[in-house]
Amino acid sequence: MTDEQAIRTLIADWHRFTAAGDLANVLRLMSEDVVFLTPGHPPIQGRETFAQLSAGMANRVRFESTYQIEELHVAGTLAFTRTFLTVTSVPTDGSAPTHRSGRTLSIFQKESDGAWVLIRDANMLSVDPVR
Amino acid sequence: MTDEQAIRTLIADWHRFTAAGDLANVLRLMSEDVVFLTPGHPPIQGRETFAQLSAGMANRVRFESTYQIEELHVAGTLAFTRTFLTVTSVPTDGSAPTHRSGRTLSIFQKESDGAWVLIRDANMLSVDPVR
Repeated sequence: MTDEQAIRTLIADWHRFTAAGDLANVLRLMSEDVVFLTPGHPPIQGRETFAQLSAGMANRVRFESTYQIEELHVAGTLAFTRTFLTVTSVPTDGSAPTHRSGRTLSIFQKESDGAWVLIRDANMLSVDPVR
Repeated sequence: MTDEQAIRTLIADWHRFTAAGDLANVLRLMSEDVVFLTPGHPPIQGRETFAQLSAGMANRVRFESTYQIEELHVAGTLAFTRTFLTVTSVPTDGSAPTHRSGRTLSIFQKESDGAWVLIRDANMLSVDPVR
């Protein structure tokens, strides 16, 4: 598997595991020191923080997502992707779903064992439709 | 000058040239195929598009900015930074300035001549105060 194939597989796995609520497997796709950035909020720093936030939402919301990888660039042990995402959050209490769309700029690192992991993610999704 | 010093100099120059309205020198700090991502808008693709948008604003608004580089990671010919920014846009017509703050995730590439340039920028600044 090439580096590019490995990263495409990682992204597909991310969406599949997230949709299935399989947090343990999502966590394997990121580094321990991962950082998630979103507008209007402080960074989410570290896999453990991400795990706690995700676990806290697990019984309250389900996610449906689609993605298109607009670009994927690999250079040595670092890579980045720009992806167009749509995410529908479906509350389990029956209230109305919310739709967001937009782009992410994600940075991946090749670990010493050859596996790629997400290390930084900038999420620019908004409730307004964007193309 | 180390790669890290070169990137810190690039960022300092970016803010200095932007504050001075020196668009020609700002354009030298980015690649021809640069992409700028912001929430709620389509990407700004390419140096030429950035130049046109900037020129269109040049007589209408002046920018004052501060920045703190929260992290800088270099790996071979690719590097990224996470920066906390505050930007005040001051309209030249005397109307009220707007303040935005937040983080950028920026990716830089080392060119064949050894110079670093910005190639991708995710801007998550918002009008709400963020720390």
